[in-house]
Amino acid sequence: MNRNEITEQIVVARLSKGLSWQQLADAIEQPLLWTTSALLGQHPIPVDQGKVLVEMLGLDESVLPVLAAPPMRGGLPSAVPTDPTIYRFYEALQVYGGALKEVIHEKFGDGIMSAINFSVELQQKPHESGDRVVVTFDGKFLPYQWTSAQD
Amino acid sequence: MNRNEITEQIVVARLSKGLSWQQLADAIEQPLLWTTSALLGQHPIPVDQGKVLVEMLGLDESVLPVLAAPPMRGGLPSAVPTDPTIYRFYEALQVYGGALKEVIHEKFGDGIMSAINFSVELQQKPHESGDRVVVTFDGKFLPYQWTSAQD
Amino acid sequence: MNRNEITEQIVVARLSKGLSWQQLADAIEQPLLWTTSALLGQHPIPVDQGKVLVEMLGLDESVLPVLAAPPMRGGLPSAVPTDPTIYRFYEALQVYGGALKEVIHEKFGDGIMSAINFSVELQQKPHESGDRVVVTFDGKFLPYQWTSAQD
Amino acid sequence: MNRNEITEQIVVARLSKGLSWQQLADAIEQPLLWTTSALLGQHPIPVDQGKVLVEMLGLDESVLPVLAAPPMRGGLPSAVPTDPTIYRFYEALQVYGGALKEVIHEKFGDGIMSAINFSVELQQKPHESGDRVVVTFDGKFLPYQWTSAQD
Amino acid sequence: MNRNEITEQIVVARLSKGLSWQQLADAIEQPLLWTTSALLGQHPIPVDQGKVLVEMLGLDESVLPVLAAPPMRGGLPSAVPTDPTIYRFYEALQVYGGALKEVIHEKFGDGIMSAINFSVELQQKPHESGDRVVVTFDGKFLPYQWTSAQD
Amino acid sequence: MNRNEITEQIVVARLSKGLSWQQLADAIEQPLLWTTSALLGQHPIPVDQGKVLVEMLGLDESVLPVLAAPPMRGGLPSAVPTDPTIYRFYEALQVYGGALKEVIHEKFGDGIMSAINFSVELQQKPHESGDRVVVTFDGKFLPYQWTSAQD
Amino acid sequence: MNRNEITEQIVVARLSKGLSWQQLADAIEQPLLWTTSALLGQHPIPVDQGKVLVEMLGLDESVLPVLAAPPMRGGLPSAVPTDPTIYRFYEALQVYGGALKEVIHEKFGDGIMSAINFSVELQQKPHESGDRVVVTFDGKFLPYQWTSAQD
Amino acid sequence: MNRNEITEQIVVARLSKGLSWQQLADAIEQPLLWTTSALLGQHPIPVDQGKVLVEMLGLDESVLPVLAAPPMRGGLPSAVPTDPTIYRFYEALQVYGGALKEVIHEKFGDGIMSAINFSVELQQKPHESGDRVVVTFDGKFLPYQWTSAQD
Amino acid sequence: MNRNEITEQIVVARLSKGLSWQQLADAIEQPLLWTTSALLGQHPIPVDQGKVLVEMLGLDESVLPVLAAPPMRGGLPSAVPTDPTIYRFYEALQVYGGALKEVIHEKFGDGIMSAINFSVELQQKPHESGDRVVVTFDGKFLPYQWTSAQD
Amino acid sequence: MNRNEITEQIVVARLSKGLSWQQLADAIEQPLLWTTSALLGQHPIPVDQGKVLVEMLGLDESVLPVLAAPPMRGGLPSAVPTDPTIYRFYEALQVYGGALKEVIHEKFGDGIMSAINFSVELQQKPHESGDRVVVTFDGKFLPYQWTSAQD
Repeated sequence: MNRNEITEQIVVARLSKGLSWQQLADAIEQPLLWTTSALLGQHPIPVDQGKVLVEMLGLDESVLPVLAAPPMRGGLPSAVPTDPTIYRFYEALQVYGGALKEVIHEKFGDGIMSAINFSVELQQKPHESGDRVVVTFDGKFLPYQWTSAQD
Repeated sequence: MNRNEITEQIVVARLSKGLSWQQLADAIEQPLLWTTSALLGQHPIPVDQGKVLVEMLGLDESVLPVLAAPPMRGGLPSAVPTDPTIYRFYEALQVYGGALKEVIHEKFGDGIMSAINFSVELQQKPHESGDRVVVTFDGKFLPYQWTSAQD
Repeated sequence: MNRNEITEQIVVARLSKGLSWQQLADAIEQPLLWTTSALLGQHPIPVDQGKVLVEMLGLDESVLPVLAAPPMRGGLPSAVPTDPTIYRFYEALQVYGGALKEVIHEKFGDGIMSAINFSVELQQKPHESGDRVVVTFDGKFLPYQWTSAQD
Repeated sequence: MNRNEITEQIVVARLSKGLSWQQLADAIEQPLLWTTSALLGQHPIPVDQGKVLVEMLGLDESVLPVLAAPPMRGGLPSAVPTDPTIYRFYEALQVYGGALKEVIHEKFGDGIMSAINFSVELQQKPHESGDRVVVTFDGKFLPYQWTSAQD
Repeated sequence: MNRNEITEQIVVARLSKGLSWQQLADAIEQPLLWTTSALLGQHPIPVDQGKVLVEMLGLDESVLPVLAAPPMRGGLPSAVPTDPTIYRFYEALQVYGGALKEVIHEKFGDGIMSAINFSVELQQKPHESGDRVVVTFDGKFLPYQWTSAQD
Repeated sequence: MNRNEITEQIVVARLSKGLSWQQLADAIEQPLLWTTSALLGQHPIPVDQGKVLVEMLGLDESVLPVLAAPPMRGGLPSAVPTDPTIYRFYEALQVYGGALKEVIHEKFGDGIMSAINFSVELQQKPHESGDRVVVTFDGKFLPYQWTSAQD
Repeated sequence: MNRNEITEQIVVARLSKGLSWQQLADAIEQPLLWTTSALLGQHPIPVDQGKVLVEMLGLDESVLPVLAAPPMRGGLPSAVPTDPTIYRFYEALQVYGGALKEVIHEKFGDGIMSAINFSVELQQKPHESGDRVVVTFDGKFLPYQWTSAQD
Repeated sequence: MNRNEITEQIVVARLSKGLSWQQLADAIEQPLLWTTSALLGQHPIPVDQGKVLVEMLGLDESVLPVLAAPPMRGGLPSAVPTDPTIYRFYEALQVYGGALKEVIHEKFGDGIMSAINFSVELQQKPHESGDRVVVTFDGKFLPYQWTSAQD
Repeated sequence: MNRNEITEQIVVARLSKGLSWQQLADAIEQPLLWTTSALLGQHPIPVDQGKVLVEMLGLDESVLPVLAAPPMRGGLPSAVPTDPTIYRFYEALQVYGGALKEVIHEKFGDGIMSAINFSVELQQKPHESGDRVVVTFDGKFLPYQWTSAQD
Repeated sequence: MNRNEITEQIVVARLSKGLSWQQLADAIEQPLLWTTSALLGQHPIPVDQGKVLVEMLGLDESVLPVLAAPPMRGGLPSAVPTDPTIYRFYEALQVYGGALKEVIHEKFGDGIMSAINFSVELQQKPHESGDRVVVTFDGKFLPYQWTSAQD
């Protein structure tokens, strides 16, 4: 069973068992979004954590080494996402992507926000006109540096 | 001159005049990312604010009504962005988009984070291993609601 | 069985059982288009309604938790639909999309028609030259608002 | 000057003159969305109406015959629209397109809603939780008919 | 079994049984191209005709309700067809599509040839330099008409 | 001036001069669709015919050699046409393309309808329920033949 | 079993049996490239030849009628081929396609090289700097001819 | 003037001057297809040859250094060519590409036909049923070799 | 079992057996990246090496002839890779591809770096600010040469 | 003048002036590939270096601030490059991309080679069968790290 097939099993098993993502994250003492993303096939899951999750979800232990390997990442089924909940993030890039680039350069100089040395958090925050989804992308600034290995 | 041509003029004029996005935002007392995004052609700019910006940038006053109209939005030159600074946000969606969707549903129920009732902020935050780019997407939660107008 | 596989089963089962979409909608006392869309995999179906539908269609009860979860939405098999009945709506966007945008802005200001706080209705209306399909998209106006959560 | 160039001129001229789409539509006594769509290059404009519009907008009379010819239609700059106001209609097709097809077939039999014998209307309707954009697509039902010309 | 799977079975069964499309069309007394297109999954097949065809092809009667439902149309496996026999029609559109549009407008005014109220015929016609494939597209002219339902 | 620029000039000049495609075709005694297609940049126009057309349209004689050269063909601005009048022909291929292929093979054997040894005609034909657009594609049948040059 | 599934079986069976394409071509006394292309699903294989091949490859005789039918052609898994051996031919078109067009027109007039009345041959030819792959495309010239069937 | 603009000028100038590609090739004593391809922007043209061509075509001498530089190659305006004369070569790849790959491997082993150490020739050859376009692709066989530079 | 299915089996078997790519490469005394690439379906694996690998991985010996055949190459699931580890190489082409072309031409003249007579090596090299991934692409320079086979 | 227009001027000016990329790099004492890439619009050029280059190339000093700003990166005119010299690098990713990913993970763990903290070098190295292009991609290893800013 390859990683994609395992992910499909996880998605259905979680619903059938009535487990929340939070319960799964708590069981392995990992952040919620990291755990969810990993169970959706985007991060390797160390064997000890994998054992806990596999048992909770009722999967076969033979999937553990596949879960533990760095996966082929990329979870969107099409280049432009069609699901409205995901699309809004893409739309935010269409509208604010250029501005984010300019302001990163103005504040930090030429470079990028790393998506590897990176965490993301989602909070439910109150507002008088209705609760808000607050998502924080937190990545190390990496300046463009023309560096070579030391021989 | 249409909005795209005005945006091209703004981009070059800002650099020639040596103005920072922050200076432009301060001049109209608006948030930095809003101002940058608006000047890059993604938001209408009210005439009074437009006048200040046009004067600072040395543009012709005839562009004011075009700046004040809601623009045709969408600032990425290709569906998948090629610029590395912008691409990292797209990559974050590839890796964490599915998880963000699941966690929004788990915390809020079925619905989306609005990208319209929305603000975005970028901060430079310290970390012992190097400064970090911290971007906060803050959108109102909109639950799926099957509502009709009242006749 | 994942949501797509369940949808495929529903499509065939409905035809084999000779049930109309209206009968299914009436059985759960929900609007016709909502019910049809939900059964085609675009909305979560609450467990109590799911039980009624699953029994009518002769499906296995084990699908209920999957039906009850917010699905990965997006029902068109290609970015530009090929089915003529669906394509006409896409064509209407090609011809009238720009005008709808302009008139929304002129009547409401800068913003959008929500597709989340939204309902859609289809009526058969008479006309001397032949019956007409009248489809009403009814979405809350959402003005562009630069709002942040209250800490 | 070809039709695209004329449309670009119209867009800027309307803003510079401070004219609303409603004023333009009223001047030629045509429906608002038809007029807007036509001025955006999607419908031919009869010469007598064209004369009125061209004068209001301060364009050259030489554009009249080009305005009066059926244009090459299709106003979206990309297959999937990026502008949020237009995108929501595309999203509605992704979520409800399959259901609209099924319900059209259930109510009318096999066939389509015409996008040619068609009108579209946009209304601002009240609701206690905020005004709503109500768009009505109204097209003649065309049943699939295997018909041939009579020799 | 969904419609696509039934179509695959039909394609192989017809060849294995050594039946021509003409024989199948004659058996249900329908036009050749309509029958072929319907058996390839592009039209609903009424149950009485379906029974005849299903028996000739040796399929299971359980497919009848699926055959009788309006299908999700669109039979090309890619937007630009790769099969040379089909491609030549696409090429004809590339070369003559613009001219067909102009001549339709010149002869009929603004509007389209319906592809719904439509029939297509293929004849083998002689010519001294070799037989010719003569395909006739015959669709009702539909003028652009801004019509609304009568309340 | 390259062929595309000449075509743009022809399109506008024809409208400004109030000439019909039929008048242009009659002036050079060529079929209507051939002439229209050629003037839209899809066929070379012999110099003697070019002279007549260029004079009628008020173009410069320097365009004659460019008009007389075989053009880079392909007149659709996108792979899937957006203009409704042209799209209906594409839709007909989506629905009937597979059937046309099968019937060509059944009647003629393996091969194609040529789009080179080819003519196309458009007629306005009456029908009690409204006039019909009748388009005839007439191409030589070319059987697949594994032939080599004779050395 | 449809044609694609048969092709997959042929590809594996040929390797398992240790048969060369040349052996298969010799067995049916057909050209090497024609045979290879046909076995890869691009040409119909007459039943008598099919019987020989099916026996050599150890396939079931039930595939013969499917092999004998004109297939849905088009053997590249993506519009731009990724396999380097095939890509080089595509690259040759990118670099020499325009020149081939011009030289065909200069030598033959307006028209094409047929890919239907066509053969292709591949030879291994010596050169002092290493053997060369020499591929000959040999197609009948087809002049653009505006011909109609004789009624 | 960049290379693309120079190519556009060459295309029009050649037609205006009434020069054949053969005359241009003869003047610089280069092969016909090489010369045509180079003048269409696909090869660098050495300065001494460039001088001859530029004079014949009446271009400015300032273009010589741009003509002499290796160009950004790739002459097809879309990934799948639309021009019928060029498309037939692409179609031949769709039908025979897989077979060419198999036969190259069977005759030469694993590797490719070079498109760099490569020539292409086009001949007009007779056949009783009509002249044939015979195109020869002649590339060095390059075996897959895992070689490294010698330090 | 075709090559893709064998590759899927290899990927899972390697993880389940706990074998490193290095161990597999050492067992057949081949370079690490060649072995990994070959096992991922991009190179033919000679039967004697295949036997060793198949035994280590616990696969069936029947896969040996398929492993030994030149595969249909091209290992990226989409034209633009989504996996971040692979994407960075694509990004390097976006940023440095043009410069690599220019410098190859300046140092070697017109031509390419072969990807066939080619090896690639990956080293872990130290640097005071963190270890570096050093990847060396090493391909034979192939000058553009207009060469023909010697008859 | 925007960055793209400046790049076009640089490309032509360098050729007209007969300057090598090496001369330009030497003049500002920067690495060859960095300088070439920067002049092709992929890196900001500090004002003091810009002054030197602008003078050598004969450009206007007004371009200096635009050259000094971080550009919108991404230099390939299409997602899959068509130029053969650049394509070979893309092909190497198709064939070796998956293996590079696996070997990076095996040697370093889960993470990427940075394309930001990165240098690239190109050398001409001898080999008995012909000179080789040796390109070294040298990027810092970035392990996947779930890190957050310190408040």
